[in-house]
Amino acid sequence: MAGASDAWTVVETRFDPAMAKAYEGLFTLGSGYLHVRGSLEEHLPDQPQNVEYERRAGNVTSEEFRNVLAQWGTYVPGVFARHPTLNNQMVNLPWPLRLGLAVDGERLSATSSRLLEWRRELSLRAAVLRRKVLWETESGAMVTVNFERFVSAMRPGVIAQRMTVEAAREIEAEVTAGIDADVRTNGCWHFGEVSCGVAGEPPQDLRVCVVTDGGDKVEMRSRVRSAAPGNWEFNAEADSRRRSCGQRLWVRVAPGVPLSVEKVTTVSTSRDAGREGAGDAGRAGGGGYDELLVEHRRVWEERWARSDVEIEGDPESQLAARIAIFHLLRAHVPGDPRVAIDAKGYAGEAYWGRYFWDTEMYLLPFYLYSNPDAARTLAAFRVHTLEGAKRNAARYGYPGARYAWESDASGDECCPNWQYADHEVHVTADVAYGLAHYAAASGDSAFLQGPAAEVLVETARYWMERITFEDRVRRTRPRLLGVMGPDEYKPITNDNAYTNGLVAESLRLAAEHGQAVVGVTASERAAWRRTADGLSVLRGSDGVLVMQCEGFDGFADPEFDRLWIDRDRTFAAQVSQERLYRGKCLKQADVLMLMAIFPDKFTDEEVRRAWDYYLPYTTHDSSLSAGAHCLVACRLGLDDQAWAFWRRGSRQDLPEADGGEGGAAEGIHIAGAGAVWMMIGLGFGGLRTALQSEELTLTPRLPKAWTGVRFPLVWKGQALRVEIAHGRTVISNRSERELVVSVRGVRRAIAPAKEEVFA
Amino acid sequence: MAGASDAWTVVETRFDPAMAKAYEGLFTLGSGYLHVRGSLEEHLPDQPQNVEYERRAGNVTSEEFRNVLAQWGTYVPGVFARHPTLNNQMVNLPWPLRLGLAVDGERLSATSSRLLEWRRELSLRAAVLRRKVLWETESGAMVTVNFERFVSAMRPGVIAQRMTVEAAREIEAEVTAGIDADVRTNGCWHFGEVSCGVAGEPPQDLRVCVVTDGGDKVEMRSRVRSAAPGNWEFNAEADSRRRSCGQRLWVRVAPGVPLSVEKVTTVSTSRDAGREGAGDAGRAGGGGYDELLVEHRRVWEERWARSDVEIEGDPESQLAARIAIFHLLRAHVPGDPRVAIDAKGYAGEAYWGRYFWDTEMYLLPFYLYSNPDAARTLAAFRVHTLEGAKRNAARYGYPGARYAWESDASGDECCPNWQYADHEVHVTADVAYGLAHYAAASGDSAFLQGPAAEVLVETARYWMERITFEDRVRRTRPRLLGVMGPDEYKPITNDNAYTNGLVAESLRLAAEHGQAVVGVTASERAAWRRTADGLSVLRGSDGVLVMQCEGFDGFADPEFDRLWIDRDRTFAAQVSQERLYRGKCLKQADVLMLMAIFPDKFTDEEVRRAWDYYLPYTTHDSSLSAGAHCLVACRLGLDDQAWAFWRRGSRQDLPEADGGEGGAAEGIHIAGAGAVWMMIGLGFGGLRTALQSEELTLTPRLPKAWTGVRFPLVWKGQALRVEIAHGRTVISNRSERELVVSVRGVRRAIAPAKEEVFA
Repeated sequence: MAGASDAWTVVETRFDPAMAKAYEGLFTLGSGYLHVRGSLEEHLPDQPQNVEYERRAGNVTSEEFRNVLAQWGTYVPGVFARHPTLNNQMVNLPWPLRLGLAVDGERLSATSSRLLEWRRELSLRAAVLRRKVLWETESGAMVTVNFERFVSAMRPGVIAQRMTVEAAREIEAEVTAGIDADVRTNGCWHFGEVSCGVAGEPPQDLRVCVVTDGGDKVEMRSRVRSAAPGNWEFNAEADSRRRSCGQRLWVRVAPGVPLSVEKVTTVSTSRDAGREGAGDAGRAGGGGYDELLVEHRRVWEERWARSDVEIEGDPESQLAARIAIFHLLRAHVPGDPRVAIDAKGYAGEAYWGRYFWDTEMYLLPFYLYSNPDAARTLAAFRVHTLEGAKRNAARYGYPGARYAWESDASGDECCPNWQYADHEVHVTADVAYGLAHYAAASGDSAFLQGPAAEVLVETARYWMERITFEDRVRRTRPRLLGVMGPDEYKPITNDNAYTNGLVAESLRLAAEHGQAVVGVTASERAAWRRTADGLSVLRGSDGVLVMQCEGFDGFADPEFDRLWIDRDRTFAAQVSQERLYRGKCLKQADVLMLMAIFPDKFTDEEVRRAWDYYLPYTTHDSSLSAGAHCLVACRLGLDDQAWAFWRRGSRQDLPEADGGEGGAAEGIHIAGAGAVWMMIGLGFGGLRTALQSEELTLTPRLPKAWTGVRFPLVWKGQALRVEIAHGRTVISNRSERELVVSVRGVRRAIAPAKEEVFA
Repeated sequence: MAGASDAWTVVETRFDPAMAKAYEGLFTLGSGYLHVRGSLEEHLPDQPQNVEYERRAGNVTSEEFRNVLAQWGTYVPGVFARHPTLNNQMVNLPWPLRLGLAVDGERLSATSSRLLEWRRELSLRAAVLRRKVLWETESGAMVTVNFERFVSAMRPGVIAQRMTVEAAREIEAEVTAGIDADVRTNGCWHFGEVSCGVAGEPPQDLRVCVVTDGGDKVEMRSRVRSAAPGNWEFNAEADSRRRSCGQRLWVRVAPGVPLSVEKVTTVSTSRDAGREGAGDAGRAGGGGYDELLVEHRRVWEERWARSDVEIEGDPESQLAARIAIFHLLRAHVPGDPRVAIDAKGYAGEAYWGRYFWDTEMYLLPFYLYSNPDAARTLAAFRVHTLEGAKRNAARYGYPGARYAWESDASGDECCPNWQYADHEVHVTADVAYGLAHYAAASGDSAFLQGPAAEVLVETARYWMERITFEDRVRRTRPRLLGVMGPDEYKPITNDNAYTNGLVAESLRLAAEHGQAVVGVTASERAAWRRTADGLSVLRGSDGVLVMQCEGFDGFADPEFDRLWIDRDRTFAAQVSQERLYRGKCLKQADVLMLMAIFPDKFTDEEVRRAWDYYLPYTTHDSSLSAGAHCLVACRLGLDDQAWAFWRRGSRQDLPEADGGEGGAAEGIHIAGAGAVWMMIGLGFGGLRTALQSEELTLTPRLPKAWTGVRFPLVWKGQALRVEIAHGRTVISNRSERELVVSVRGVRRAIAPAKEEVFA
């Protein structure tokens, strides 16, 4: 590993403007309820955060990313507002972390100050971000500045910050602290009302209150404290015009007497009423930074105990896995089924903070098998947004429920590009599959008979209208025409294998559990079952190759040799969209993804044939592709390829200094983070999911580069630990019931608190 | 016919707010160079013309049409500017026609004044719009007001207006005149600079000068004159803030002494430098209204002599035909190959004033066979915009030239919807076909060897990259994948019959004429010819049915019976787009259009099979559909259906009072107007085009409802007249050479100035 990071800590050892946004995204901290990007406390000069985007001609439905060095981000999941042309988006809230320093009249700045040392560390274990800079001022002073911050896991509306300043000789320091409301979300202003000022009796708080044009009220209060002598000067009036509030302290810092400043910010919103434990959680309490830190660390210790994956013999993979799990733990909103986890894991504005099929297919497994309660809120989110899905169906002229390709917190379709919104219908089946997965893995068998049954029934009713029956009268020979599968380079195809497979499963689930819903008849359920059986996965002329869709083999040769000049950039960036749309190029695994989900429905020969056929056409332009390929490679025993896809899939957000791609500038690839866990648990661990197997079943295939891997699991309510080494797998039963497990075909019962060793 | 219109005059006998915009469009006057919609001189109260549209979420790429009663429109072809999200659009210029009247303090208003009589007449013959109102004022006066106006065909930058006011008793009249620059184009403000004021020595002119954000400078000067006593008061300063200028006269009008006011407006633009005869044409000369009218009428007499179609026995059809021809004559810009004719015939802002495939496939025939010089500018427009077409090709990563689906005057692609812009590639082949059609019909055989040859070659080079060769190495088995044909309800299909047919023709033309271009090799031309021969039109399993595209028969039953509830509205308005995109529903003729263009490539049996197969699936949601169907019905001898499609296709813009649909609110269906001529000439007249036949050939099929039809033609430079009655066709040779003609298979030579009667 090139960097200074170790397996629990991500370290940045110099400030590189080109990587600043990637670290901002990677260093996002959060409590579920509240997230802040890793932007610098003192900000960077000449990086305005209030730039409105002009809507461009041409592809007007695309996001723009400005070429800026810093992009603040403060997000409270569920706070959405209307973008003028792109539908609802998650709002970037006022930035509450400002903490600036000037010494002898010179402002601290990463881009212009003479910094002899720079070290930022994200402690994954403690979820604390620290920075140390050694600054030689123009006045000749050597000043050490330390910043620390965290978003309290115990009090999820609270952010704690500390700055300490030490100097080798006496210096004149000016400390500023503030909250800035003049921010945009994807270049768009969302605050109908803004008030900025000071609140309370001395010692006063800084206070910013905004009402978004989506109707949410968000209040932030910061209390800044220092033992240093001197009075804080509040400059509320001047700042209010600038949509910010701040305070300022001039102080002499003597050598050997560090200046310490603490800032504790409390964020509350009008959404808190519906939040579990919101009463206390939003309050900072009387404690200072250190007290808050103690309780915060305790929560994270518990989280890691439930979730950590330990990899031996490969520190780079270990770091990548911990980064992924850290963000999965951070991004989940405990106890709140009104939101899911957006495509960028609340760490950036790409994809407008919306919820995709990722939730079910890439995020759920991690939570299901490590913390089923967390998984339950994600499953419940789809139940909660059923009304939105019904509105979507009605908007398209259908009965039943149609889940949004890009969902906001209400479930309404927000995707502004019709090819996805209209055609990528598989998400509706993925939702049903996810509900069943939750029920099976958690052992919460009542779930599908209870709140989820209506989802199964309403989506089945949608499908029965969306499906084309070649014989309309008898409703036989069902086909799904005009769909886009996970491979988004084929926008409008017939009988996409993935979609047909998931829809058939969804209809079977509805037939099985639909009687729980009043009004569902036996004949309706029989029709669902019959339709599920009729929806077929097409085969090639050899009878073995599963066709991605009708006519796939007739599409154009993508001519990668001639047209994909720069393999470091996506194929899509180098050819016109219409070339993508008529060629055999795949954006990501499609048939293989289906085979990873339903391994028992396909023989090894079929999987291998599909692998050999599609892989040469697959660009992996999607960050989701590597994970699915790794799973299938594990099944096929293609160890080298599994390893290559693991490396590719696990390093997207890892800093370049640590051997990764440093891709977190616009947020975390959170589905990729989920895929990291899937590659370890389902791929190398060979865990069959609860939908694939009634009993706990593992077929470990440890990568050669690792000497071992250990992780906890929860299987239908039973906690256990898995330790895999080469030639040896140990399962420890951490539950109070006997655990039955099969490892590589050897089936044993393990008594409570005991372990079993498998060869 | 219900209305008061006669065969040369369109009459409106009452003011109906619901129909106001339709008459505005229908009553558009123009000189080619300049067009003004038929908005009322005094305007309507509470109908602001400066409303900015908010861009809506969702389908952001659509036009919005405001629900207003009046929509001014002043257009100079070629003046385009950038819409913030929808690319370049034709600019709606300042409105120069304001001429208002108040009597005894009460303003004349169509919506609030007590009008005992209302009569507006568009004289198609003279291209003059007249209005007479009898107004009983609140003060009890009976006032007759006459308005007249025309855009000079002789001086194409000049608009002449006259208002006369007569009263039965003395009245106090206030006359206002002005120019209003505070207008929007599709809700968008395009004037970077505006100056409004008065100009010159007394008698002064009103003057408005704007510079568009597209860089065009447009100046308008109005001189208002009246013999009435009194001085005009100019209110330039106050009005300039309102982006307008105006003048005002108070005058007593005595009984028996009508007040007459004339307003002559001259429009000039920075584009005039490139305009033929611009020097004089833009000047009003010293003459007044009557003098300008005399020369104007003379031009229109000549035009009608060259173009009129006389229909006997069916006044409604006669009026419909004359309206179509009137607008075809108006919309063409004489001598200016820098522009073509936009989709709404410069009579509204729908389709943003852009040029489509209509130019070649629906507009050219009228001009080709009545006024080849006019046709030449349309053909030359595509040569002129070859550079734009090359830019389009390069933008998509292709060599050669790719014509825009929606072209501005530079040839650049402006279509904001990717499914059309990317996939409706047939326009590029249509352009080549149009060039060949011009060369053949005009007898200008040098054209294809000269300026047009490069278009043929560059488009062929584009096709050779756009086509997929199943055998890449030998470049055999060509296919065209991922295209949208004329039927825009099938967005991404393979081997669309229409497209393959036109592209093959285009490649053959390039092979035939390409040697005129330096650098074209014999082997390149051979490859074009071979590819043309290889591009096939797919057949159904019976070997007879021409398939619209691969897999058409596998698309979904559109279920019109169940889903097309209201047959008075389009099918598309009643189902989701994705239903259109996966169903067998057609927007318009596609295979049949191909058969109309290449009648000899298909047997009667094949045409009939296609008719029977596709017609039940065809919604005719496109205004272009009826015309193509009429032509094919004529060929098949389906007289009743030909007649039904004639009626449907010819009445779109005809006022409801005259038996039509009154559909001109957003502009004229100018391609439909071209189709009106095609239905008469090519359909009922049975004229084979010059690409279909070397010699002049007609197979008349007069509709039963008509007793005769007469029209002039120009065939390869030879003028002639055709008179068709039941059982009798007379061809008069009006040229100075012998004319060879075949009528219903009987071939004769006709001496100059002689005629021949055919049975």
